Amino acid sequence: MPYHAPVRDHVFLLRDVLDLDRYANLPGFADAAMDTVEQILEEGGKFAEGVLAPLNSIGDKEGCHWASDNTVTTPKGFKDAYRQMVEGGWPALGSEPAYGGQGLPAVVNVAFSEMTSSANMAFGMYPGLTHGAYSAILEGGTEEQKTLYLPKMVSFQWAGTMNLTEPQCGTDLGLLTTKAVPQADGTYKITGQKIWISGGEQDLTENVIHLVLARIEGAPAGVKGISLFIVPKFIPDANGNPGVRNTVACVGLEEKMGIHGNATCVIQHDESTGWLLGVENAGLKLMFVMMNEARLGVGVQGLAQGEAAYQAAVEFAKDRLQGRSLTGPKNPSGPADPIIVHPDVRRMLMDAKATLEAGRLFLLWTALHGDLAKRSPDAAVVEKAHDYMGLMTPVLKGYLTDKGFKICSDAMQVHGGSGFTEHFPASQYLRDCRISLIYEGTNGVQALDLVGRKLAANGGRAVMSFFAEIDGFVAENAGDESLKLFVDALAGAKAKLQEATFWLMQNGLANPDNAGAASTDYMHLFGLTGLSYMWALIAKAAGAKIAAGESDPFYANKLVVGRYFIDRLLPETDSHLAKLKTGAAAMMALPAEAF
Amino acid sequence: MPYHAPVRDHVFLLRDVLDLDRYANLPGFADAAMDTVEQILEEGGKFAEGVLAPLNSIGDKEGCHWASDNTVTTPKGFKDAYRQMVEGGWPALGSEPAYGGQGLPAVVNVAFSEMTSSANMAFGMYPGLTHGAYSAILEGGTEEQKTLYLPKMVSFQWAGTMNLTEPQCGTDLGLLTTKAVPQADGTYKITGQKIWISGGEQDLTENVIHLVLARIEGAPAGVKGISLFIVPKFIPDANGNPGVRNTVACVGLEEKMGIHGNATCVIQHDESTGWLLGVENAGLKLMFVMMNEARLGVGVQGLAQGEAAYQAAVEFAKDRLQGRSLTGPKNPSGPADPIIVHPDVRRMLMDAKATLEAGRLFLLWTALHGDLAKRSPDAAVVEKAHDYMGLMTPVLKGYLTDKGFKICSDAMQVHGGSGFTEHFPASQYLRDCRISLIYEGTNGVQALDLVGRKLAANGGRAVMSFFAEIDGFVAENAGDESLKLFVDALAGAKAKLQEATFWLMQNGLANPDNAGAASTDYMHLFGLTGLSYMWALIAKAAGAKIAAGESDPFYANKLVVGRYFIDRLLPETDSHLAKLKTGAAAMMALPAEAF
Repeated sequence: MPYHAPVRDHVFLLRDVLDLDRYANLPGFADAAMDTVEQILEEGGKFAEGVLAPLNSIGDKEGCHWASDNTVTTPKGFKDAYRQMVEGGWPALGSEPAYGGQGLPAVVNVAFSEMTSSANMAFGMYPGLTHGAYSAILEGGTEEQKTLYLPKMVSFQWAGTMNLTEPQCGTDLGLLTTKAVPQADGTYKITGQKIWISGGEQDLTENVIHLVLARIEGAPAGVKGISLFIVPKFIPDANGNPGVRNTVACVGLEEKMGIHGNATCVIQHDESTGWLLGVENAGLKLMFVMMNEARLGVGVQGLAQGEAAYQAAVEFAKDRLQGRSLTGPKNPSGPADPIIVHPDVRRMLMDAKATLEAGRLFLLWTALHGDLAKRSPDAAVVEKAHDYMGLMTPVLKGYLTDKGFKICSDAMQVHGGSGFTEHFPASQYLRDCRISLIYEGTNGVQALDLVGRKLAANGGRAVMSFFAEIDGFVAENAGDESLKLFVDALAGAKAKLQEATFWLMQNGLANPDNAGAASTDYMHLFGLTGLSYMWALIAKAAGAKIAAGESDPFYANKLVVGRYFIDRLLPETDSHLAKLKTGAAAMMALPAEAF
Repeated sequence: MPYHAPVRDHVFLLRDVLDLDRYANLPGFADAAMDTVEQILEEGGKFAEGVLAPLNSIGDKEGCHWASDNTVTTPKGFKDAYRQMVEGGWPALGSEPAYGGQGLPAVVNVAFSEMTSSANMAFGMYPGLTHGAYSAILEGGTEEQKTLYLPKMVSFQWAGTMNLTEPQCGTDLGLLTTKAVPQADGTYKITGQKIWISGGEQDLTENVIHLVLARIEGAPAGVKGISLFIVPKFIPDANGNPGVRNTVACVGLEEKMGIHGNATCVIQHDESTGWLLGVENAGLKLMFVMMNEARLGVGVQGLAQGEAAYQAAVEFAKDRLQGRSLTGPKNPSGPADPIIVHPDVRRMLMDAKATLEAGRLFLLWTALHGDLAKRSPDAAVVEKAHDYMGLMTPVLKGYLTDKGFKICSDAMQVHGGSGFTEHFPASQYLRDCRISLIYEGTNGVQALDLVGRKLAANGGRAVMSFFAEIDGFVAENAGDESLKLFVDALAGAKAKLQEATFWLMQNGLANPDNAGAASTDYMHLFGLTGLSYMWALIAKAAGAKIAAGESDPFYANKLVVGRYFIDRLLPETDSHLAKLKTGAAAMMALPAEAF
C-alpha cells in the first residue's frame, strides 16, 4: 500500500494558484523560486515515500518501549530514518539562516510536513514539536539562549517538547501547579508532573529540550502567574554539548489508541534545573507561539491522514472486484467490476477528494499569510496577514481534523470488512488521525477560540477583512461565465457565514452560552466557506490553464471535483446555520443529573 | 466506569409509548404483560451490569487466542459468564416454546440485547449469531433438523454461525466458490474457505453449528446456484449428542481494530459433512432470514455502543473540573466547574441523548412490527408489519450504526486527551462500534437495499404506508397545542422524505446511478424522519403523563430532549435533500485513473 506524495498538486497550488514567484522580492522568497520549490518537494516526497512510509505500520505494531531506567526505545527503523532526515537537511527547511536554517518560507515547510505526516504521522511528530519549541525560543529567548539552543534544534540534533498538561490541568491552564523555585544563580528548581508529553523521551536525539510551564513561588494564581522554562535533559556544558543529566525523567508511557510510534510520556520534574524563557508570569503568551504553530501543524496532520487514507481507499476500490455497475458491466471480461464503479463508493472518494484538494490550498494559503506577516514590508499586508493567521488557525485545526477523521472513516468503509482488519492500513490511519481532534486544544476549544476571541479581536477586523476579500473576488469575477458556478456558490456561502457572524455578535453578547452553543457549527460553516473560496481560486487557475490551451485532464478534473464540492458538501452550510441560530436554550435546559 | 442499564427508558417506551399491554390477546404477548417485562428487563439489566460489563475491557485487552490445534480460547471470564447466561435462561427469551424457548415477543429480546451489547459487544455477538442461526433453521429446516438442533441452540448449549464471506466474495455472493458434493447417503461434502466468521470457533459451547453457503456441483453460476448447509463441528450421534468431529476447522483468527473478545475466524471446510438446509439453490433466501435478523441486531449494536459511550462521557463530564461556565461559576467552591457546564460539551451529550432515546424507540417499534407480522390474526396488520420490517431494517442498520459511531467519537471528544488513552473506555467503544458500519452488509449496501429494493417492492407499498401513518398522526394531533412543535417538525421532515422519494422514483429509473448516488443521503433523511416520528410519539406519551399530573422530571425532560432534536439534528434533513437532488453527474464524471 505505497503512499504517493502529491507533489504535483502542491506545485500546482503553489505555482498556479498562489503564484509564489510574485513574492520573489521578499526576504527568503528569493531562494524559493518555484523551480527550486518543485525540486525540494520532489526530493521531500521521495524521502516521505521511501524512508518514512515503510516504517508506518511497523511503528504502529511495535510501539515505543519504556524501561525502568526511564529510557524509551522508538520502533525499529525510526532511529535510522531520523538520522537520514537530519543528514538530508530536512529539519532546517523553514528555520532561520542565522541558526543554520535554510530560511525558506513556511509555506514550503507546510507542504513538506504534509507529506511526512501522511507517510508516518507518529514519526513526523518528533521533528514537528522540535520546530515548535525552536519557534518559542526564537521569539522569547535571550541571545545567549538562542545561540546555545537554536543551532542544535534547527539541525534536530536536539529535540524540543511542550510540557504543558498536568493530571488536573489540561485546557484550563490556570489550575497548573508545577512549581519553580528561584535559585541564587538565576536558575530555577522545577518540580511537578507533566502528562501526555509527545516525544518527551526517545532514543533519536542526544538531548531533549523541554519547554515547561510552571508557577514561580509566590506568583499570582490562575493564568497570570505562569512562566515558561527551558529544562534540558542534559544541561549544556561550557562548549554547548550535553553535560550533566538533569533531574527530569520519563516515568512511563501512555497506552493509547493510535500514534503508537510516538512516545507519549509522563514527565516527572524533581527539582530539575530550568532557565526562565521570556518574562516572568508571561509564559502563556510565549507557549502560545509554540501552540499556534502546533495547531496549524495538527490541521496539517488531519489533512495528511485523510490524504493517506484516501489513497489507500482508492487503491482498494480499483483492485477489489465485487458486483456490477448499476449501468451495466464495466469490466465484462472479469468476474465482477472494480467497486469504484459503484456510486456510493465514489461518493466517499469524491467527498474526500473535494475536501483534501481545497483543504490543502487552505493550509498553504494561510501559511503564506504567515510568511507575509513576517516578511512583507507593507504594514497593511502584515496586519491582514497577522489577522488571518489568528482567525484561520482554529478553523484549520478544527475543521480539517474533523474532516480528516471523516475521510479516514470513509476510507475504512470503502475497504469493507478488510478495513477493520489490521492487515490493511485503514485502521491505523483512523486510529492515528483521531488524536488530531483532541490535542493542542480539542476542536471544541478551537471553536470557542474562534467565536470567543478571534472574531471579536480588534472589533472584528479579521473576519471583516476576510469578507471584504471574498466580496472583492466575487465582484472581480462576476462577469466570468466559466467561473459563475464557483462565484455564485462562494457568494452564497459567504452570505451565510456573515449571517451567522452577525447572529453571534448580537446573541453571544446577550448570553455567552449562545456563542458556545453555536461555536462548532460556526467553525464548520467557516471551514466550508473557506473551502468554497479555495475551490473558486483553484477553478480560476485551472480555467486559465485550459483557456490557454492546456489539454492535460489534470486541470479539467479540478473543475469536476470543485463542482462536486458545491453539489455535495456545500449544502451543509444550511444546516449549520439553521442549527446555530437556535441558540443555547434547549442545549442548556437539562440539569446535570438528567444526563 | 460502570454501565447502567437504561431499564427505566425501556419500560417507559414499552409501557407508555408502545402500550405493549394492548396486545395481550396475541400469542406470546399474554406472557409479556408489562409488569413481567419490567421484571425481566430489571434482571437482564443486572446481568448486563454485573456479569458482562466487568469483562468488557478484559476482553478488549486480552483478546481471543488461537492455537495450532485449531482451538480458540476466549478471554478470561467469558466462559463463566456464558455459563451464567445459559443457566439464567436468557438465551431462550425470544425462542419458540416448542423447542424450549420462552416465546416472548422479539421486542423484549431487543431491549435485552441492547443491554448485553452495551455491556459487552464482543460477548453479546456469540449468543446473537446463535439466535440468527436458530431462526434460519426454524424457518427452513425439516422436522428432523429442527428437533435435532433447535433445543440445544435455544438453550445456547450449541452455538450457531453464519459462513458466508470468502476471500473473493463478500457483498457479491454470486462469486462464491465453496463447493458441495452430494453423497449417496444424502449428505454433502463441503470444501472451501470462509473468512470473517464471528464465533466460528470458541471454548464456550460443546458444539458449533455452522450455516454454510456453498454451490452444489453442477449448480447454476451466480446467486441462483447457492445452497445453504448445516455443518456441525461435531456431528450429532444417535442420541443427539456431539459425536464424530467434522472436518471443519478454524485455521486462524483475524487481527482487528476492535471486538477483540469475539473470535473472528478463518474457517476451512475440507470435505466437511453437511446437510442441506431448505431447498437446493435457494440458500440465499434462507440465509437472509438470518441476515435480516443480524442486520437489526447490528442496528442494536450501534445504538448500544453509543449508549455505553454516552454514559462514560456523562460520567467524565460531571467529574472533570476544568474552566468556568461562560455565564459565571457553577461550582464556586471548587477550583473549576465540571465540564458539563460548557455548551460545546453539552452539544455532544445532547446530540447523543436526542439520537439514542428516539433510536431506541425506533428499534423497539420496528421489532414490535416483527412480532405483529408473526402473531397478528389481522391480514392487513401482518402485511403492513412485513412491509415495515423490510423497509426499516436497512434504515436501522445503516442510520443507527452511523450515528452510534458518531456518538462514540463525540464521547471520546468529551474525554479530551483521556479519551485517546486506553485507561478510559472511550477508545474501546469507538473501536468496537466501528465494525457495525461494515458487517452484515456495509451501510452503503444498506442504503442501496433501501432505495433499490425496499422502496420499489410492491409498487412502493411500504413507504406509502409509512407516509400514510405519519399523515394520520399529524392529522390526529393537529389541534394539540402542546404537541405542535413535534407535529410540525414531523410534517416538515416527512414532506422532505416524500420529495426525495419522488425524486428517486423519477430519476432513479432514468439513470440507476442517480439512485446509487442518492442512497446514503436518502437513508439518513429516512432515519431522521423516523426519529422525528419517534420523538412525536414520545412527546405525546410524556405529555399525557404530565397532563395527568405526573411531576417526575423524567417526563418533562423528554420534551426538552425532543425539542433539542428538532432544533439541532433535524435541520440536517435539508442538506441531505439538497445533496441527493444533485444526482450522479459530478459524482461519476471522473475516470478511475483521475483518483
